[in-house]
Amino acid sequence: MSTYSIQPLTKMSRDPHRGSYDKETIHSILDEALDITISYVADDIPMAIPTGFVRLDDKLYIHGSVKSHFIRQICQNEKVCLTVSLLDGMVLANTAFNHSFNYRSVIAFARPFEERDEQMKIDVLKAFTDKLLPGRWEDDIKLPSNEELKATSVVCFPLEAASAKIREGQPHNIKSELHRKAWTGYIPLKMCWETPVPSPDMAEGMPLPVYQ
Amino acid sequence: MSTYSIQPLTKMSRDPHRGSYDKETIHSILDEALDITISYVADDIPMAIPTGFVRLDDKLYIHGSVKSHFIRQICQNEKVCLTVSLLDGMVLANTAFNHSFNYRSVIAFARPFEERDEQMKIDVLKAFTDKLLPGRWEDDIKLPSNEELKATSVVCFPLEAASAKIREGQPHNIKSELHRKAWTGYIPLKMCWETPVPSPDMAEGMPLPVYQ
Repeated sequence: MSTYSIQPLTKMSRDPHRGSYDKETIHSILDEALDITISYVADDIPMAIPTGFVRLDDKLYIHGSVKSHFIRQICQNEKVCLTVSLLDGMVLANTAFNHSFNYRSVIAFARPFEERDEQMKIDVLKAFTDKLLPGRWEDDIKLPSNEELKATSVVCFPLEAASAKIREGQPHNIKSELHRKAWTGYIPLKMCWETPVPSPDMAEGMPLPVYQ
Repeated sequence: MSTYSIQPLTKMSRDPHRGSYDKETIHSILDEALDITISYVADDIPMAIPTGFVRLDDKLYIHGSVKSHFIRQICQNEKVCLTVSLLDGMVLANTAFNHSFNYRSVIAFARPFEERDEQMKIDVLKAFTDKLLPGRWEDDIKLPSNEELKATSVVCFPLEAASAKIREGQPHNIKSELHRKAWTGYIPLKMCWETPVPSPDMAEGMPLPVYQ
């Protein structure tokens, strides 16, 4: 089993049974998540920005405008913290104290740098589209022009350390309180795509593509 | 209109038309979100933890174990960064460059402190339950014992500065590319509660409560 090395920054002190350093587990959470929070330090103050991202092997990538103040600031940090959180449900116990959420989260650390290789930038931008819309890049849309590529910063985060934390399943009910008329169990929570809303400037009758 | 003061840390430099300092807007995003990321600095390294939270007026609250290393660390910070992100959909344009997400996010700053007043702690813990399950606290469950209250830390974050950033609606399509056979528009995304899963140790025939 391939794992990330356990380091002081990612070692689970509370609820260690919920922790995992397994790459497959961590990557599956990262690949399901649509956004990530990048936390860094600027002038001794913690700053954090949620943004879209994609994973390729052991590296995460974000992109933004070359004019972005935020991207310049994060690249000045020797170590940034990356967090992802997927909420899977709420957990209803028979005591207030034992209520909880089911979740899968990842905390990781990396030294970011700006990716300047043009082909690598294109590969990363294609991976962003492929993550949710496989096939769209090749078939349907205008690919980035040289000017658009120059206007886009791609930042790479090679993962140095990472851990996942997972809670799943039923509540911890207190036996001596089972006489109460409290419904207990868990209510799953999912992200659901709803009915697409076509753009008014699109040609009429354009079919909704199936990306899979 | 009541607003948070615009400070250098929360002033929107990129896409200022997407920014808002309006309290009503910011509070509605905070109240819809189920989790928040708390970013702080420990030994010059940025650390960030996703966790559940609740808002009461201009204050946010989290809770955790009194043994939590994380809670001790954040309370040593004079300023922490709080971020919330709600993804509302993906935005499909006719150029790769103009693809985007619809989202509502909040970035806020606060000096945290541990709430030690017992009644205030109870009020906050009740607010956590009321946020998703109004009525459950009063009617259905065993309330925290003195021992459980002592084992629980409640941390208060009085919001000093906060801003929201919102993108909504249609993509920016490039007119000269409208001849392409690309479906464009947006696909809304929502969090959906699914069928509850009852705990096996609950008395048979216990009805699912309606909390509203």
